[in-house]
Amino acid sequence: MPHFTALVTLLALFLYFWFGFQVGQARVKFGVKAPATTGNPDFERVFRIQMNTLEWMPIFLPAMWLAAVYVSDIGAALIGGVWIAGRVLFMRGYTEAAEKREPGFFVQATATGVLWLAGLIGVLMSMLHA
Amino acid sequence: MPHFTALVTLLALFLYFWFGFQVGQARVKFGVKAPATTGNPDFERVFRIQMNTLEWMPIFLPAMWLAAVYVSDIGAALIGGVWIAGRVLFMRGYTEAAEKREPGFFVQATATGVLWLAGLIGVLMSMLHA
Amino acid sequence: MPHFTALVTLLALFLYFWFGFQVGQARVKFGVKAPATTGNPDFERVFRIQMNTLEWMPIFLPAMWLAAVYVSDIGAALIGGVWIAGRVLFMRGYTEAAEKREPGFFVQATATGVLWLAGLIGVLMSMLHA
Repeated sequence: MPHFTALVTLLALFLYFWFGFQVGQARVKFGVKAPATTGNPDFERVFRIQMNTLEWMPIFLPAMWLAAVYVSDIGAALIGGVWIAGRVLFMRGYTEAAEKREPGFFVQATATGVLWLAGLIGVLMSMLHA
Repeated sequence: MPHFTALVTLLALFLYFWFGFQVGQARVKFGVKAPATTGNPDFERVFRIQMNTLEWMPIFLPAMWLAAVYVSDIGAALIGGVWIAGRVLFMRGYTEAAEKREPGFFVQATATGVLWLAGLIGVLMSMLHA
Repeated sequence: MPHFTALVTLLALFLYFWFGFQVGQARVKFGVKAPATTGNPDFERVFRIQMNTLEWMPIFLPAMWLAAVYVSDIGAALIGGVWIAGRVLFMRGYTEAAEKREPGFFVQATATGVLWLAGLIGVLMSMLHA
């Protein structure tokens, strides 16, 4: 098992869980009752931090695991750590203003792209050598 | 392969698929045509049952599998069964009223937390013994 | 490792990433600024293409991998290819009009159902033989 990637996965899950927790807090703070998810821009930004992270989870996690299995556990885990840092930056920026979400978004997107590419190269190399 | 966890995974996927199916039914029943997802609170609650479950899938499934691989297949599968029960309770409650979603939410969140913690302990133990 | 399924996974992740990219483009084209996700039906259809695909990712990917591991790598990858084709059809139809999303939706749903069923049969057979 790629232990480092497993550990980074658990950290990423926790961060994402925390974004969801903050949506619950924002519901109370800005008075947006479930099931509504719109109506207050401050709430909507907090909601979109969670949602955008959710949108990227099915790209990030499989790409990181394929990179870990086919290329390098430590390598995939390190880039996964960059993804986590990008997501924290994204959250901090987006909380302030919608435009400030962009640097963190770029970091996490680049990290995901590198993992995806590493996975692709690893799979193709394994197919050629099989 | 952790067979019991694989089986619980397939059951969880089916339940989640069924929540999505109910959104389609609710579109017809409450007259909310795609692509809209807002406008009728009864529809929105059915939609949020699916969405909230979607939000938790990338935490629940990886946590259960890491717990299964690093700690115990049967243990992870049993707690995964508790998650499924919690999700059914959540669905039943939320269908009636937004406030009634809370007990089921708590059950599934606790089950996910236990799986996450088991995974973390398992990964760290494996790293120490490696 | 099931190499073919890994390859189809990476292709599916890319397609899904591309749907997300198109949402960004549609934000500019139809003047729907983040964090809003509603207000313009043309934007909402593009947004729903990504969201509906997101909703199915946690069913499709685990079902394909369980089918690959328990039954057949090449078989799972081929049906995964049908899923991708269905998603492209879904995207093309939904971009034009909400009603035209249905054939592609049906194709990807059927492919996912076959993968799920193959996974279930595979798991149950392995349990019986264990």
